Amino acid sequence: MEFAAPEGFKIAAAAAGIRKSGLDLGLLYSDRPATTAVVFTRNAFPAAPILVTREHLKSSGNTTRAVLVNAGNANAVTGEAGMKAARDCAAEVAKQLRCKPSEVFLSSTGVIGRPLPVDKICAAVPSLVRTLSAGGADVFSRAIMTTDTVPKVAAASAGGVRMLGFAKGSGMIHPNMATMLSYVLTDAKLDHATLDKALRYAVDRSFHSITVDGDTSTNDTVAVLANGASGISPSPETFTAQLTEVCQTLARAIARDGEGATKFVELRIEGAPSDEAAREIGRTIARSPLVKTAIYGCDPNWGRLICAVGNSGVPLTGEKVELFIDDVPLMNGDLKVASEKLDSKEVRIRVALHSGSGTATVWTCDLTEKYIEINADYTT
Amino acid sequence: MEFAAPEGFKIAAAAAGIRKSGLDLGLLYSDRPATTAVVFTRNAFPAAPILVTREHLKSSGNTTRAVLVNAGNANAVTGEAGMKAARDCAAEVAKQLRCKPSEVFLSSTGVIGRPLPVDKICAAVPSLVRTLSAGGADVFSRAIMTTDTVPKVAAASAGGVRMLGFAKGSGMIHPNMATMLSYVLTDAKLDHATLDKALRYAVDRSFHSITVDGDTSTNDTVAVLANGASGISPSPETFTAQLTEVCQTLARAIARDGEGATKFVELRIEGAPSDEAAREIGRTIARSPLVKTAIYGCDPNWGRLICAVGNSGVPLTGEKVELFIDDVPLMNGDLKVASEKLDSKEVRIRVALHSGSGTATVWTCDLTEKYIEINADYTT
Repeated sequence: MEFAAPEGFKIAAAAAGIRKSGLDLGLLYSDRPATTAVVFTRNAFPAAPILVTREHLKSSGNTTRAVLVNAGNANAVTGEAGMKAARDCAAEVAKQLRCKPSEVFLSSTGVIGRPLPVDKICAAVPSLVRTLSAGGADVFSRAIMTTDTVPKVAAASAGGVRMLGFAKGSGMIHPNMATMLSYVLTDAKLDHATLDKALRYAVDRSFHSITVDGDTSTNDTVAVLANGASGISPSPETFTAQLTEVCQTLARAIARDGEGATKFVELRIEGAPSDEAAREIGRTIARSPLVKTAIYGCDPNWGRLICAVGNSGVPLTGEKVELFIDDVPLMNGDLKVASEKLDSKEVRIRVALHSGSGTATVWTCDLTEKYIEINADYTT
Repeated sequence: MEFAAPEGFKIAAAAAGIRKSGLDLGLLYSDRPATTAVVFTRNAFPAAPILVTREHLKSSGNTTRAVLVNAGNANAVTGEAGMKAARDCAAEVAKQLRCKPSEVFLSSTGVIGRPLPVDKICAAVPSLVRTLSAGGADVFSRAIMTTDTVPKVAAASAGGVRMLGFAKGSGMIHPNMATMLSYVLTDAKLDHATLDKALRYAVDRSFHSITVDGDTSTNDTVAVLANGASGISPSPETFTAQLTEVCQTLARAIARDGEGATKFVELRIEGAPSDEAAREIGRTIARSPLVKTAIYGCDPNWGRLICAVGNSGVPLTGEKVELFIDDVPLMNGDLKVASEKLDSKEVRIRVALHSGSGTATVWTCDLTEKYIEINADYTT
């Protein structure tokens, strides 16, 4: 039991048979209504669990008692049948936990466009509920994995407030099957407006700062549940910092686990017109296949970095751009040394723009043949 | 001499030693000033030849006598030295051809950030000029290649007007070394405004409809030179149609020659709110690595197509989206048949959106391990 649930939360997972084998269904439970803030996909076709959860949060006043997550099937582009399937799952969870269906938060991840196996899910719910425990973090983190190679959990504790976060996704260019899920549980006591503001701040600096780019999926979800069981109301600043740290740890883990990745890349952008501009430049670099393949090949091809900066759409006032790998200057430096620096599991690139004081840190990974292999034949 | 130059044009190429071996310098010449329209890169750091050519077109009133193109070196991010290098090349061409330097149009493609070998280029110009001929299309088309596997030439003739076009680029996600070059020569007689309008129309439906996406490079250039030698002024409609056809042939050739590609993909978007919206949706699909790898793997994973449509940012009023490979429906169709259809050198996908009457055709290719291999180690 490495990661204990915060006060008032219990966690479980089961092998419901949605996938051929292994854990594929997870449940997060709060013994009291938890204030819930969420960032959903901006994709024009949100999946059924997202549509249903939106309704639920509206009618429950943004409170949640349970989060049910399945892997193996996205329940996306499934029409009315998909909506009914999601509602049936929520009803079964509500029945077993004796809460309202509107207090059930739903997520699905997996193949798009196939009917959700509702019967298998509902059949597994009673045993899921029976096995709920404060020590379920490990099984839950594995139940929500798809092409992830490692489970992703992060915990933090400060001033009597505990926080436990999970994420799923191995987003190279964007997460496989285009889905990134993350849940953060905390026993802090916070109103919805404060929680929502903290989450948006944290997500901008974490999940929106890895190479998810515009390509959000039909199922992307980041949620934070605050059940107040600690009785402590931290200051918004303290809480936001703690939440940002947990989200960044999870986001870095996703970038590090990028499909087929051999290297973890941190891009530090400095001297941009604003923080937002810095982030946009960082993301443009991070999603450039030419930059990512050059890093893979230890090729100090800095022209590709400059080109990506120039493609970001951010107007730069400064004439000067400097590039560094660790502290090695790239543009007029020793390319042999730079190539050696690139030959590492962890690559740190710094871009100095001399166009203001905006900064951002963005995380990504390299692009390899293995990525193609993983994605060329997923459904069949 | 398969492709003869239009009236009044002559063409040549040489091996100037910019690259380790092979043709790397090309010259297009008009015996009279040719009205010139151009679409340059939107990258924030345009290369020196583009900056110099912009000055030239301004001072020559958009007329050109010669186009000098080198491969092997982009002369980009080379600062003042790069500007001087470009001007020196133009001066040498002007001297040998007895025209004004401002009548010389310059392009470079290759590695970014290395000094242009001006001496080698200037030394080769006299012999380039001596070998100018109406039959130089073949050598010119090969001199501007970088990772292209085939030269790209297209010709058209209508109503006494001839047109000859060249392109360079093997743009998978975006062209390698981020550069796409194209030149169309015609003996039609047209004013600059008409020529410019025709070019913009044609480029939207050709080079902007392959997977070049937002990632334009420091050197991207499309130019059309009309020298009026035929004495014929075609109607703008006729000329635009002819130019669009030539540009589309060249653009398709670029998509077909995508780095590491095994398949050519045509995406037909129908029922969009507008033609522009249709093009944007088509481009979003065409640049999705998940769609491209699925096509490579013959995986009829239509969820990825839907997801890409949803990521385009285009608001759709219709609830219904239909997908077809040739005439095989994808969403409720026989996936085995769809998979067989994908197992082809030429894949045709149709997306019916039921949200209006906008249409577009976009071309791309699949994404393979070979792409990674080509790009992982380019400069070293």
